[in-house]
Amino acid sequence: DVFSVDSEKVADAFDPFGEGNEHSTPGEILAYRKPGSQPNGEGWNLRVVPNKFPALKVEGELEPRGEGLYDCVSGVGAHEVIIECARNESRTANLSVEEVRDTLQAYKDRLGDLKRDERLLHAVIFKNTGPLAGASLDHVHSQLIAMPLVPQEAELRLSNAEAHYRLRGRSLFADVVAQELKDQSRVVVDTPNFLAYCPYASRFAFETWIVPKFQQSHYEQVQRKHIEELAGLLRETLRRIDSALAEPAFNYVLQTAPFHDPPLPGYRWHIEILPRIARAAGFEWGTGSFINAVPPEDAARFLRETDVDG
Amino acid sequence: DVFSVDSEKVADAFDPFGEGNEHSTPGEILAYRKPGSQPNGEGWNLRVVPNKFPALKVEGELEPRGEGLYDCVSGVGAHEVIIECARNESRTANLSVEEVRDTLQAYKDRLGDLKRDERLLHAVIFKNTGPLAGASLDHVHSQLIAMPLVPQEAELRLSNAEAHYRLRGRSLFADVVAQELKDQSRVVVDTPNFLAYCPYASRFAFETWIVPKFQQSHYEQVQRKHIEELAGLLRETLRRIDSALAEPAFNYVLQTAPFHDPPLPGYRWHIEILPRIARAAGFEWGTGSFINAVPPEDAARFLRETDVDG
Repeated sequence: DVFSVDSEKVADAFDPFGEGNEHSTPGEILAYRKPGSQPNGEGWNLRVVPNKFPALKVEGELEPRGEGLYDCVSGVGAHEVIIECARNESRTANLSVEEVRDTLQAYKDRLGDLKRDERLLHAVIFKNTGPLAGASLDHVHSQLIAMPLVPQEAELRLSNAEAHYRLRGRSLFADVVAQELKDQSRVVVDTPNFLAYCPYASRFAFETWIVPKFQQSHYEQVQRKHIEELAGLLRETLRRIDSALAEPAFNYVLQTAPFHDPPLPGYRWHIEILPRIARAAGFEWGTGSFINAVPPEDAARFLRETDVDG
Repeated sequence: DVFSVDSEKVADAFDPFGEGNEHSTPGEILAYRKPGSQPNGEGWNLRVVPNKFPALKVEGELEPRGEGLYDCVSGVGAHEVIIECARNESRTANLSVEEVRDTLQAYKDRLGDLKRDERLLHAVIFKNTGPLAGASLDHVHSQLIAMPLVPQEAELRLSNAEAHYRLRGRSLFADVVAQELKDQSRVVVDTPNFLAYCPYASRFAFETWIVPKFQQSHYEQVQRKHIEELAGLLRETLRRIDSALAEPAFNYVLQTAPFHDPPLPGYRWHIEILPRIARAAGFEWGTGSFINAVPPEDAARFLRETDVDG
């Protein structure tokens, strides 16, 4: 039947991020390769390449200017794609722990490298999975955008954390982790050095954060042993979400401190996982507040109790 | 062919907001009715009813409490639906000028009434059109949510406007209108008392704001003559958007000052129209900053030059 859609065929469509198709991306910035393989050839586990359609570009001078009342700055920055495995796989949850570990290591390597460019003040790493979450390619990947400014929302997050630290002498993140561990109702997975939980009054249904139990503001400082523990936890959390919600569209975001800030005693890098099962509408865009029909306590219980293997 | 989908049939499906189906909504709070017609019966041009699935409810005491680090308040407020015409029409752009005028009058009437409830500090009025913009019902309607708090984003907007007023002695909105009229490149429609324009560095492709040229912070203070002028302008702006973008999903939001603030010399109520032709993804949720592939200058020219009748 020529009119039927064969979902198997979709997976067979040309995959610009797949092994053997290295020519279809710009040249690699970083790759974890098998011994003896050549740059931009086959034989790799992970590649980082410039985005073919970048929001910001590395070339050019930083030229801030006014236009009457308004502020403008030239689009200097970096927009990179982290291709997380060589085969055509669309879900992070289906990667091996080693592949997730490599991905988390690549985040560290790229942040550490970009930080040396003094024009760049801040970077965000994010993943869009599924068309409803803004993904345009199926093959599992993340994106990194490094910017010549610190976004207003990041400034607000940092200054809230700093205010808490000044007032209490403790990190807000330490206090949240302690309260969540005591309460238990919003905990999804608890490991020796990390906590995955559904935040109190979260914006999105099934929103889940992964926060370190140790003090560290800059992700590029993360130790290898912590990357290994985080890889298992991130994979398990995403497997629970995929199982509970039947592979939903989702975003995740790695929130880290601005490049040139000193280590901040009040802030911790963390990962925010944002399932996109409801749509932001006029209320959310108009107020910055969110209507969430699933209490995080219910979401966390559902994620804890869902079946996941391996 | 029993398997084919007939798009004409969708319009014939049961319309809970249609004339004759008044029993399918909660009882009306306000209606503009034909002489001799009965409440919750036929013979109306516009009805305002409580949302059947409200985010907040009018009943109950306001009970703020702490939960350890977190703040909580009982869900006291109002969640109303403004049904903007009696027939099954899905686009505001296809309403008559009189119907848009009635809608804008209903916004004023409801805000003025809710403001008398001292538990309510702020209200936002918004419209979701199309599933991609979060609409679950096709029949043209708006929603009003009145809250027991002022959202953080509204506070920030007001304090930015106030800071500008303290520094310059002029409203930020007056300065923006003056610069846009001088520049012309982002103007969509200019009327004696209002300006529709695509804001500089706007978040969404084809985002368009309607701002009054006179000083007024609270929409509930708007005069009838201004409602009449605004009705024609809002309708024309939405007709231009529907024509240019083939009836896109969109939200609009009426941003007005908090109920119990005195008239603010630095702030003006305004309408933000947000077409939803691209999706917010990890970058936007992670930074509060937006990647917009359509410069507002191009969007405004396209909207100015598009053909619209009546």
